[in-house]
Amino acid sequence: MARDRWLLPEGIEETLPAEARRLEALRRAVLDLFDRWGYELVMPPLIEYLEALLTGVGREMDLQTFKLTDQLTGRLMGIRADMTPQAARIDAHYLKREGAVRLCYLAPVLRTRPENLAGSREPLQLGAELFGHHGPESDAEVMGLMLATLALAGIRRPHVDLAHVGVFRGLAEAAGLDGDHRDELLDALQRKARSEVESSLRSWSVPASLSGAILGMLELNGGPEVLERARKEYTRYPLALEAISELEAIARRVAAESPDAELCFDLAELGGYHYYTGAMFSAFVPGRGRAIAKGGRYDGIGRAFGRDRAATGFGADLRELARAGDVRVEPRGGIAAPVDEDAQLAEEIASLRAAGERVVRKLPGDGATPADLGCDRELVRRNGRWTVTKLS
Amino acid sequence: MARDRWLLPEGIEETLPAEARRLEALRRAVLDLFDRWGYELVMPPLIEYLEALLTGVGREMDLQTFKLTDQLTGRLMGIRADMTPQAARIDAHYLKREGAVRLCYLAPVLRTRPENLAGSREPLQLGAELFGHHGPESDAEVMGLMLATLALAGIRRPHVDLAHVGVFRGLAEAAGLDGDHRDELLDALQRKARSEVESSLRSWSVPASLSGAILGMLELNGGPEVLERARKEYTRYPLALEAISELEAIARRVAAESPDAELCFDLAELGGYHYYTGAMFSAFVPGRGRAIAKGGRYDGIGRAFGRDRAATGFGADLRELARAGDVRVEPRGGIAAPVDEDAQLAEEIASLRAAGERVVRKLPGDGATPADLGCDRELVRRNGRWTVTKLS
Repeated sequence: MARDRWLLPEGIEETLPAEARRLEALRRAVLDLFDRWGYELVMPPLIEYLEALLTGVGREMDLQTFKLTDQLTGRLMGIRADMTPQAARIDAHYLKREGAVRLCYLAPVLRTRPENLAGSREPLQLGAELFGHHGPESDAEVMGLMLATLALAGIRRPHVDLAHVGVFRGLAEAAGLDGDHRDELLDALQRKARSEVESSLRSWSVPASLSGAILGMLELNGGPEVLERARKEYTRYPLALEAISELEAIARRVAAESPDAELCFDLAELGGYHYYTGAMFSAFVPGRGRAIAKGGRYDGIGRAFGRDRAATGFGADLRELARAGDVRVEPRGGIAAPVDEDAQLAEEIASLRAAGERVVRKLPGDGATPADLGCDRELVRRNGRWTVTKLS
Repeated sequence: MARDRWLLPEGIEETLPAEARRLEALRRAVLDLFDRWGYELVMPPLIEYLEALLTGVGREMDLQTFKLTDQLTGRLMGIRADMTPQAARIDAHYLKREGAVRLCYLAPVLRTRPENLAGSREPLQLGAELFGHHGPESDAEVMGLMLATLALAGIRRPHVDLAHVGVFRGLAEAAGLDGDHRDELLDALQRKARSEVESSLRSWSVPASLSGAILGMLELNGGPEVLERARKEYTRYPLALEAISELEAIARRVAAESPDAELCFDLAELGGYHYYTGAMFSAFVPGRGRAIAKGGRYDGIGRAFGRDRAATGFGADLRELARAGDVRVEPRGGIAAPVDEDAQLAEEIASLRAAGERVVRKLPGDGATPADLGCDRELVRRNGRWTVTKLS
């Protein structure tokens, strides 16, 4: 097999029948779940003009996006590396509804480089986005939908990390940090580099109490008690307090509806700081370093498309869910039909298929047994009638 | 709307919720049909190294294929413009089964240019391929599956053109024509340019009887009586006769199983001559110049992948089927749930969703009515219990 596989580039895979059946079953189950929660399916295009695709998204997406020249216009096009901005454009441009809009999608995206060593460059991205609503209710809803999606894939007790960009933003603003200093601090906190954070804060002459509050973020990780501690520690920083309140409200709703989820808080987890604008959440499964699903609030993503809407959502890769989870499909079985041009046989095959049966026709000269054809029964003629019988 | 659409390149479209529901319904129906006929789903990758993607296919596919540089290796990659060669590679490399193998797929492909003015550059390609069997039975099977697919989309009485590369090949060989002369003749026949065919044959000193036989191809189009006429006209050309016999055997089987299809023959229809190796068929619907689905025999496509297998199959674009056909989906309806953190409400919502109901939660501050949410019922509290009631 190894010799054959060289044909496929790194991070690109081919899905053979057994695995494709599982993926298709999970695909349908996920889309049905999204539908039951009120999320409407959209199918954005695989390629677009680059400026439409990259408008309002970060440099990271630019690097991850394959570029192509449109032979019809000479303009630069990109292959989508993420469908979230496409969903935001559909909300902003096409639907233009006043109230909340719930959209979902499930389709491949392409990336120039895999996210990590074993990562895919062609994730089957699934996602749900809720546009047009501020407030913890919508964050809790998409987080609940993320947990329901994981449960559907057989991932029962995920570990979920919650964070909020408002904590760091509130403290950084109170300290008067912006631009390079803020990014430097963000980076050091993200790496949990305590002594670096300390020396930076000292060099920028940040007052001791505020420095203590910022360093405190590194300790604020764990269960729900973290939020109580944070509330006490940040009484003097209203933006940070507001973020804590939002996390409390979200966590309360999610815990009530998904009691199986293990909710944790890590206030110095700022990985999505430049993308998200409010709460952020990531789901983890044992033995896998990267999040299996993640999401959060990214208000204003539609601004670039002329409509500044609130937005919250989550996304995952269907292939990774299938691998990490436990998706079982029943063996399909089927009925083998003999080589025979008899009109009655053709009618019998048609009516069996119409009733949902899998009927595979044998072909003259082909040595396949019914079992080779994945069949557990066969059509045989008995007393002039075609009858389905079990394999002997 | 027009002002918004400029954002999408020509031949690229965005599918909004109402249309996406129809497409998804048709997608599932088609894959279920393929399954009932014994065709196994595969999911080949969107991108591959160019030499793997273009091995064994014509120059046309090369021009239609978007090229990319792999940042990891510097090698050239292509985005698939057709999934047939990918299915052939899977048959040749991965499955390696001895007997007949039936594969199917349904996924987007990309093309540098639309096939015609209104054409798509991102067809949702569906296809079924039968590898490892020579003979009219397998051609008839995939043609029958094509007709069943069209019927599923609501295309009830398609016009189907049948042709066979063996007729022209047999006559051209008898005349000793190959290379440029053969291609010139092929091109003139394809354009039905009778006088050009005549003068070419004269200039190459092709004997009168053979010239008559070749010119006769231009008259051989119409119903099944065409095959009888051809059989009489080509008694001296065994390869052509063999092709006629194959067409007869295929047409007999297809007519028996799909009595609604209008089968026509056009022996000078040679559009796929360089791709196909045997029978070729195309389905047409009124008011549409190009075929809505087409297929045929292309033995040896796996040769480039180390396994010279017989092969026959068909393909179509799901979006075009949906447009030309008549796919209806029931209005979904649903139950609107009020803004309330009550645990009993959450339980009721969960159990309704588990039972397959669509339940959309209202959000505080959002003015949407249940009808705005696409709901025909709502959850209200009565005597302390949450109850589903019709909208008043």
